[in-house]
Amino acid sequence: MEQLYHRFSFFIYPQDVDCTKFVTINALGGYVLNAAGLAATENGFGMEQLHSEGLAWVVSRISLEMSRFPVQYERIIIETWVEEYGRITTIRNFKIYDINERLIGNACTLWAIIDLKTRRPYNLNNRPEWHRFANGVPALTPKPTRIKEIQSVINTTHRVTYSDVDFNGHTNSMKYVEWMLDTYDLNQFRENTITRIEINYSHEALYNDLVHIYKEEEQDVALFKAQSANGLLFCKMKFFWKKRIILNSYN
Amino acid sequence: MEQLYHRFSFFIYPQDVDCTKFVTINALGGYVLNAAGLAATENGFGMEQLHSEGLAWVVSRISLEMSRFPVQYERIIIETWVEEYGRITTIRNFKIYDINERLIGNACTLWAIIDLKTRRPYNLNNRPEWHRFANGVPALTPKPTRIKEIQSVINTTHRVTYSDVDFNGHTNSMKYVEWMLDTYDLNQFRENTITRIEINYSHEALYNDLVHIYKEEEQDVALFKAQSANGLLFCKMKFFWKKRIILNSYN
Repeated sequence: MEQLYHRFSFFIYPQDVDCTKFVTINALGGYVLNAAGLAATENGFGMEQLHSEGLAWVVSRISLEMSRFPVQYERIIIETWVEEYGRITTIRNFKIYDINERLIGNACTLWAIIDLKTRRPYNLNNRPEWHRFANGVPALTPKPTRIKEIQSVINTTHRVTYSDVDFNGHTNSMKYVEWMLDTYDLNQFRENTITRIEINYSHEALYNDLVHIYKEEEQDVALFKAQSANGLLFCKMKFFWKKRIILNSYN
Repeated sequence: MEQLYHRFSFFIYPQDVDCTKFVTINALGGYVLNAAGLAATENGFGMEQLHSEGLAWVVSRISLEMSRFPVQYERIIIETWVEEYGRITTIRNFKIYDINERLIGNACTLWAIIDLKTRRPYNLNNRPEWHRFANGVPALTPKPTRIKEIQSVINTTHRVTYSDVDFNGHTNSMKYVEWMLDTYDLNQFRENTITRIEINYSHEALYNDLVHIYKEEEQDVALFKAQSANGLLFCKMKFFWKKRIILNSYN
């Protein structure tokens, strides 16, 4: 059904939570992207439709801010709408609710369409009929900014394997988040929580690519980049941390 | 509600599928374990209840056989029941259906309860009231056998990171499957499909443990073990492969 706002409900399975029993930021980001995909499909411009025309959606930036992280076996509702539809970029926003309709998070994502043959951006003005879905309503969280590039040393290195590659044939966008989270030990998550992440995607890492993770920390902010051995930038990220105040029952 | 058979429906999200758009065997195994967890909770012996008594379920063996793998955005139904309830081991079986109620897979799992302090098996006869859930009905797939140990060379090595560790504080049981799948390149999955896997779990890999993956192939059967540097066995696995016969539309 064609509509401006879509709502989808997601169940937090045991494999979505970490050692603290709170959902991981990459599982949550995955649900946000799923909501985007399902909404686009309902409006007639989903991934399957685009693929059949030799096109594909690519997410270029994400910001995701949480006031409370849901736990295992909790159900969440993600509401999504298109704010802007420009020549190259479209903005899709999200509100994340718990089952009692309390707002627990917000997200803003920037997307482009690429031509699968040329890998170049597609001019969205070629599809003026999609303008009508943009309602101009901003997210309740700031848009993802341009993240500064860091010049630190390599923290960890990953080889892209079978389980990293998704149906698009490239590294799943949430895998980079996982690799950056994996630079921390478990105590970091027991004692702290992420309040916001920002992601800038640049190039796609393909099967068997070597991905170096760089990390730089300033107070409660961590900056990351994922880059190939010959300097091809895959993505940059920014995590905002804060100390946990309330001890959880499992501690 | 107390009952012998439980049915749960699961949606195959984009992050559950691989480069072939078919669900990964580890995502499917995860849903089978989720169905087990949800059914146990409904019958009053779920993980939360056990944790509160200082006990925990551990899966010791799994066999999973598929005649057809569901694809992205498909909904599946998993039916589960307890076959046997012994002194140390209980057997829980599964049928996997597609949305049209066609049977597409079967699974059989063996479980024990451990005391979280001593890490020793708990005598299930201490809970005679749970006997009533066992209905004696076998799975439509053979029980998981004892897998022979292989003596090959190390294929790959993993360090257990944050994203591998689940709410139990140890490596998620499906992560080992991922590591074994990751020993193959993408063409293996494009040209072949797994028809059956068997898993024997031994010890739990903990945060920062080094896990060596060993692999041995004989025709269409692959044998694996995951072991620590000093010889502690984490698990053994057996994959049964077959050539894909029908070319899929994306090929």
